Amino acid sequence: MDYYSSQISKLIEELSRLPGIGAKTAQRLAFHIINMPEEQVEQLAHTMTEARSNVRYCRQCFTLTDQEICPICSNSKRDAKTIMVVENTRDLAAYEKTGKYGGVYHVLHGAISPMLGIGPGDIKLKELMERLRGDVDEVIVATNSSLEGETTAMYISKLIKPTGIKVSRIASGVPVGGDLECIDEVTLLRALEGRTEI
Amino acid sequence: MDYYSSQISKLIEELSRLPGIGAKTAQRLAFHIINMPEEQVEQLAHTMTEARSNVRYCRQCFTLTDQEICPICSNSKRDAKTIMVVENTRDLAAYEKTGKYGGVYHVLHGAISPMLGIGPGDIKLKELMERLRGDVDEVIVATNSSLEGETTAMYISKLIKPTGIKVSRIASGVPVGGDLECIDEVTLLRALEGRTEI
Repeated sequence: MDYYSSQISKLIEELSRLPGIGAKTAQRLAFHIINMPEEQVEQLAHTMTEARSNVRYCRQCFTLTDQEICPICSNSKRDAKTIMVVENTRDLAAYEKTGKYGGVYHVLHGAISPMLGIGPGDIKLKELMERLRGDVDEVIVATNSSLEGETTAMYISKLIKPTGIKVSRIASGVPVGGDLECIDEVTLLRALEGRTEI
Repeated sequence: MDYYSSQISKLIEELSRLPGIGAKTAQRLAFHIINMPEEQVEQLAHTMTEARSNVRYCRQCFTLTDQEICPICSNSKRDAKTIMVVENTRDLAAYEKTGKYGGVYHVLHGAISPMLGIGPGDIKLKELMERLRGDVDEVIVATNSSLEGETTAMYISKLIKPTGIKVSRIASGVPVGGDLECIDEVTLLRALEGRTEI
């Protein structure tokens, strides 16, 4: 890429290492950055390094935060007796966007995957069990509906059952607005099994 | 977005202002950046600010470079008597990637567009005419095949013709590997008009 100046090439190369950013997008971004007001570029660079150095895990739920305890765990209006278990912070964010869930979370940072060599010890499961020693009514397992997510859900359920705490799993079925003919058979069967009286 | 820490939210927001980066991509990028090794994040931030503050226009061809004269203009092996006129540095890069063009370039930084209020004075046309006072054999107009690109090509041709310098336009037609039935009528007619004997 010696047809660009070395600094542009370097910027393009570094940007294209980010996930989901191909060569074309990296090029477009690089030219955009070069044409941005200088103080805006400095601001973006500063935000990146600041976020990287200050963000850590919440001591309670292990979501990413820049405080000791995240805003959700420290919010006294949230029901600390209901814990929703999710695979990562993005899944937490997805449920928070609904604005309807009033409990707290526990972020596993992964899911059990024998294929990838990820065992129960590699995700925040021990930490979840420690939290359950406190006053907890229900654990809602909201791991993904993938093989790994289901395996993790089953494992968690077996782990918690002996403690007498209620364990539930979010429903699996046809997405709202989903067209039946476009949906895979496994989902269709799940939706059938999970049918409720109306 | 108070379900993330303020620093993550800020990073997501700033990233989503970049072109082609939607809310979802910005979120994925932000989480990736937070999980990157700290020195890599600092490196990326540094590259961004460095590129922004050092990149300028080549004094001769106006491409983006970090030197007074870009590597192409200062390469004595390139034929300085053949100038290809392009709309921007990305178009220059596209031709450089072919590896077959041995001349130099002139980057207009735009195209004439009455609709957007961009006139001949708003792009690097005066600068092109100044270059033509030197020893130039041919000007190849490689502006886009859009309304603006064609208008600009026509304008340049009329401007240069009186000087006696040869002006040519890159061919327009069916792209290599293109399926005729998928190509618009204007392109098909262009391809017909531009047919060559075989």
